[in-house]
Amino acid sequence: MQLQFAFDTDTAWADQLARESVGLPKLLGMRTTVIEPGHTACALEVRPELVSSYGMIHGGVVSALVDHVLGSVCYPVIEHGSWSATTGYTLNFLAPVRSGTMVADATIVSMSARTAVVRIDVSNDGRPVALAQGSATLMPPKRTEPH
Amino acid sequence: MQLQFAFDTDTAWADQLARESVGLPKLLGMRTTVIEPGHTACALEVRPELVSSYGMIHGGVVSALVDHVLGSVCYPVIEHGSWSATTGYTLNFLAPVRSGTMVADATIVSMSARTAVVRIDVSNDGRPVALAQGSATLMPPKRTEPH
Amino acid sequence: MQLQFAFDTDTAWADQLARESVGLPKLLGMRTTVIEPGHTACALEVRPELVSSYGMIHGGVVSALVDHVLGSVCYPVIEHGSWSATTGYTLNFLAPVRSGTMVADATIVSMSARTAVVRIDVSNDGRPVALAQGSATLMPPKRTEPH
Amino acid sequence: MQLQFAFDTDTAWADQLARESVGLPKLLGMRTTVIEPGHTACALEVRPELVSSYGMIHGGVVSALVDHVLGSVCYPVIEHGSWSATTGYTLNFLAPVRSGTMVADATIVSMSARTAVVRIDVSNDGRPVALAQGSATLMPPKRTEPH
Repeated sequence: MQLQFAFDTDTAWADQLARESVGLPKLLGMRTTVIEPGHTACALEVRPELVSSYGMIHGGVVSALVDHVLGSVCYPVIEHGSWSATTGYTLNFLAPVRSGTMVADATIVSMSARTAVVRIDVSNDGRPVALAQGSATLMPPKRTEPH
Repeated sequence: MQLQFAFDTDTAWADQLARESVGLPKLLGMRTTVIEPGHTACALEVRPELVSSYGMIHGGVVSALVDHVLGSVCYPVIEHGSWSATTGYTLNFLAPVRSGTMVADATIVSMSARTAVVRIDVSNDGRPVALAQGSATLMPPKRTEPH
Repeated sequence: MQLQFAFDTDTAWADQLARESVGLPKLLGMRTTVIEPGHTACALEVRPELVSSYGMIHGGVVSALVDHVLGSVCYPVIEHGSWSATTGYTLNFLAPVRSGTMVADATIVSMSARTAVVRIDVSNDGRPVALAQGSATLMPPKRTEPH
Repeated sequence: MQLQFAFDTDTAWADQLARESVGLPKLLGMRTTVIEPGHTACALEVRPELVSSYGMIHGGVVSALVDHVLGSVCYPVIEHGSWSATTGYTLNFLAPVRSGTMVADATIVSMSARTAVVRIDVSNDGRPVALAQGSATLMPPKRTEPH
């Protein structure tokens, strides 16, 4: 889907950096690596503290990354100050993750004034490990909170 | 769905405690509070470090809790040493979370030799905040890893 | 979730009957059997023409019934003349269906001015055969079409 | 994902034609138009009898088409005589359908001995109208029925 930036790219990067400097993104070490109209990518290093006693990453780390990019991909293409609140998504796990870098790629497939539908591919050092599809509710700047 | 414990409850609790003493469950502070045949509940305190700059918890924390209970609910009703690997799930967010305690309740709705289908309700101080449905693949003890 | 009828029950039944007298509901023989605030049930007889060469009903018949009740359950609790448009849903199949009657039970779990989140249980002569969860977008009477 | 036909293309087409000559596919007029390793497409004409009193196709018709291609895409790449049983899927509706031809394109994203994960795009005269993601359980020839 062809989309335009709703504001300048410097602002898009600054906003994303701010969102990743607090809360869960900071705790898990998520860092957005690509911001394009309708597409973002976010990476996460598999640190030992994220690994279970079986040597695999907890599925919740993958879920968290999916949730994060589903919201992130919407911001640069909606009016500055607007909200993107994840309404829900579906996630299929394809393979376990043990080490290396996970990357989640999010692409907006459909977008209206109120809703964006997004597909997400998660890979681990280039190997597909999860697949997701979800939607976000887009809210104008005046509202002070999502949902 | 009526299900029996596959092994004694002390073992079920010890196993769950072990799973929550490492990786993401430890990092986020997940602690299982109910283990019954076909049903578990897991709680998480909304610590300030999980909250975004907008004052709300990141959706990924809810996702992680959902993923965790989807696996946890299967262990006590499968043979000891078996694996439960989440194959996928769907999550709908109902309301934002700002503080207090989140609890995810998981119930097995259907179970065969290979698959369990599970429904999950997430509440925040008693208020419904998310709804999920997913499945887990059950694997016998001999296999040394899921997927 | 506690909900009230938005209009009288005779009107709710007449509207539902009208929706089931055309299109896919008529073709497949769907007939709503319960209309209560926040809950509806819809039945479908497994006629031979719905059965595959393997003797089982096509999954699409189950899907169609799920889609139908997800919309139907919203109408009686929104303003008369409003629209309910299914935004999406997830379906897990639990067991095959060969004959008899299928019943889909839909319950509204959460409802705001714009969105309803619904859970659906599908049974076949009392046996659970599918499980679904989805959402519908609610639109006021002035708009002349959904989506 | 690169996949090979598990048997010859004439057999693949004959099998698919047989599946579409009975049950729901026949009733709704589904006809597969593309069979390639890991990819199939299936078309459906929007006949007046599939249209609701609001002039739109029932969402269940879209659901049925999605369910159909999710199974169909697996057959040509599994051993002849094997089963593909849909385990579940998620569907997001993007736009209403009123007339013309609907086409569902299914692509296998991941495949193991037991499971295939599939993405599906549904279009209406070239316009995207729905998006789906699901999985199918693959069963060897000896078992006489799915699930």
